[in-house]
Amino acid sequence: MKTNSGLSFLDATFRSIYPQDFAYRQQAEAHLDQLTMPHWALGDLMDLAVDLAGMTRSLRPPVSRRKVVVMVGDHGVAAEGVSLYPLEVTTQMVHNFVRGGAGINALARRSQTEVCIVDVGARDSFDALVRSGRIVAKKIGYGTANIAYGPAMSRTHAVMAVEAGIEIANDLAATTDVFGTGEMGIGNTTPSTAIAAVFTGKKVRELTGRGTGIDDAGLEKKAAIIEQALQINKPDPKDGLDVLAKVGGFEIGAIAGLILGAAAHRKPVVVDGFISAAGAMIAYSLEPFVRDYLICAHRSVEPAHEVLLNRLQCRPLLDLNLRLGEGTGAAVAMHLVDAAVAILTDVATFREAGVSDAGRSVQK
Amino acid sequence: MKTNSGLSFLDATFRSIYPQDFAYRQQAEAHLDQLTMPHWALGDLMDLAVDLAGMTRSLRPPVSRRKVVVMVGDHGVAAEGVSLYPLEVTTQMVHNFVRGGAGINALARRSQTEVCIVDVGARDSFDALVRSGRIVAKKIGYGTANIAYGPAMSRTHAVMAVEAGIEIANDLAATTDVFGTGEMGIGNTTPSTAIAAVFTGKKVRELTGRGTGIDDAGLEKKAAIIEQALQINKPDPKDGLDVLAKVGGFEIGAIAGLILGAAAHRKPVVVDGFISAAGAMIAYSLEPFVRDYLICAHRSVEPAHEVLLNRLQCRPLLDLNLRLGEGTGAAVAMHLVDAAVAILTDVATFREAGVSDAGRSVQK
Repeated sequence: MKTNSGLSFLDATFRSIYPQDFAYRQQAEAHLDQLTMPHWALGDLMDLAVDLAGMTRSLRPPVSRRKVVVMVGDHGVAAEGVSLYPLEVTTQMVHNFVRGGAGINALARRSQTEVCIVDVGARDSFDALVRSGRIVAKKIGYGTANIAYGPAMSRTHAVMAVEAGIEIANDLAATTDVFGTGEMGIGNTTPSTAIAAVFTGKKVRELTGRGTGIDDAGLEKKAAIIEQALQINKPDPKDGLDVLAKVGGFEIGAIAGLILGAAAHRKPVVVDGFISAAGAMIAYSLEPFVRDYLICAHRSVEPAHEVLLNRLQCRPLLDLNLRLGEGTGAAVAMHLVDAAVAILTDVATFREAGVSDAGRSVQK
Repeated sequence: MKTNSGLSFLDATFRSIYPQDFAYRQQAEAHLDQLTMPHWALGDLMDLAVDLAGMTRSLRPPVSRRKVVVMVGDHGVAAEGVSLYPLEVTTQMVHNFVRGGAGINALARRSQTEVCIVDVGARDSFDALVRSGRIVAKKIGYGTANIAYGPAMSRTHAVMAVEAGIEIANDLAATTDVFGTGEMGIGNTTPSTAIAAVFTGKKVRELTGRGTGIDDAGLEKKAAIIEQALQINKPDPKDGLDVLAKVGGFEIGAIAGLILGAAAHRKPVVVDGFISAAGAMIAYSLEPFVRDYLICAHRSVEPAHEVLLNRLQCRPLLDLNLRLGEGTGAAVAMHLVDAAVAILTDVATFREAGVSDAGRSVQK
């Protein structure tokens, strides 16, 4: 897609991403320092409040309209038996999402978060669900190719996957205050681990986790497949689109796009778990300023997730041994985003409440 | 207070506390294992769901009526300058709570949690607030004595403080599904650190933290005061009421009582931060079965808190560098209690959703 100016859609998006606003950060900090509590006594929630002010350019950051976007894609590498579950589960789970019966539905309801399902690369075409508007169709392909033997997708398709995510962000921006990322795709811890290995240079065997719950032999095989994928494809860590094309996935590219699009709209984006962090890593490699709009929801049990969080310099909000994906961690973390804003907007200052401040009226 | 049977009120309460119900735990586990997700993929939230089933004897644990009880007490040891804030701040903050301007108010509103303020031992008598029913009066004394020179309170007053907490739990039980603990009392990290030292045997200097934010010299002085309090009072770690009387506080005893009362009613109780954990430790020393009803909200920055959490064998839900108290961590953790129940009640099983389960229909 080209914009009028002749810039590519991606380049135009990158150019519209600015860092957080420093003046709003400072104003938020100054305000939080006056609240009726010891200095910074609500810790990370106050840091988050400052971030939200800096992202949204507001001392009353709007966060009530929350959407978790669940990007769906299939993976050719699943044929290698890297997951406990059969490929059909991607389709079955999409139907489960639409009926409201999945983990993401239960948790998103509790945090007043809408769930938006987007097919970017499933094997199924979901004709009936697309026609009835229950899911959004942005399909790039019917599952990726098997990365154990060649690239997951062409570079063109990688660009299209990222563009699809940006388009979703653009379409939803007018009705969304906070984005959350989510995904469904049997086998997708394998490409995500490969992405983590490319960008961090760490050993595949140290990064590979059990995903849906494979045993020791499965873990061994999975690591070997990832090593093979890296050796055959030789993704270039300096080129995020190359990494995405060679060892990524359609939904991972779309997550990267959603994050880029959210940042371009100056909207906070809550990054769910490991797969989403791989998408965030792609986005960050394409445009480092996106970092300023990321809120990392949680630390999952996948070892490569921690490594990606460090690379993104993100301290996750939650650490609950989650490993489901779907956007479930993001849905739970929305509560903390809401709490951070409540601290910024709903707590009285020392002056307002007539409370003695430390170091001013202290009786020695 | 004596019961009809001749048992003391405390003994009668202890005798009515039973462990979690194992059959309900097993049923909850079996159900969670059937949900449309990899085994235990929602980690600690699933553990919490099992606990809630075991506590409440229900596979649909009621958790919608939430109350954080903020116990208020003053501390004679504050005269030693162990806090950054003057003693008047206890009174000022109670007025702030009543007006809804404090951190606990902001965070409790967001998690649909009621805030109940109870005076058990403030220097102020809050006559107008008590008359208008804005706070509950269970006053044992007008602040504790200075533990640096003798016991905080008599053993009788320690019993009365715990009884006050049990009475509050009894009064609220019919309208409360989940209790949360909270407190206000300038100087109360000092007795809490003393309590942690008594029960764990660790060195005071390793346990002492900055509380409201004292500097290095203040920290040094605070540790010396706590050492002096332990040396002068010689609390008996085998006797929780002795520890409470000698180096505790009225609000800490009342928190212990609230926890005991909640457990006797088979209600979950979300233990806020460091001071609340000291109260939980007193409760646990009096009746170890209370452990089965504790949900530890968060890990605060106070070093003695971690030590108490370990002693209580509690993994806290949140780790957000909070150090405010008031019940703020409990108010935030209520979201996770709610999320845990949503997983138990709102997620479809493999059979219901027609999703292939791992190890059954896996395509090898």
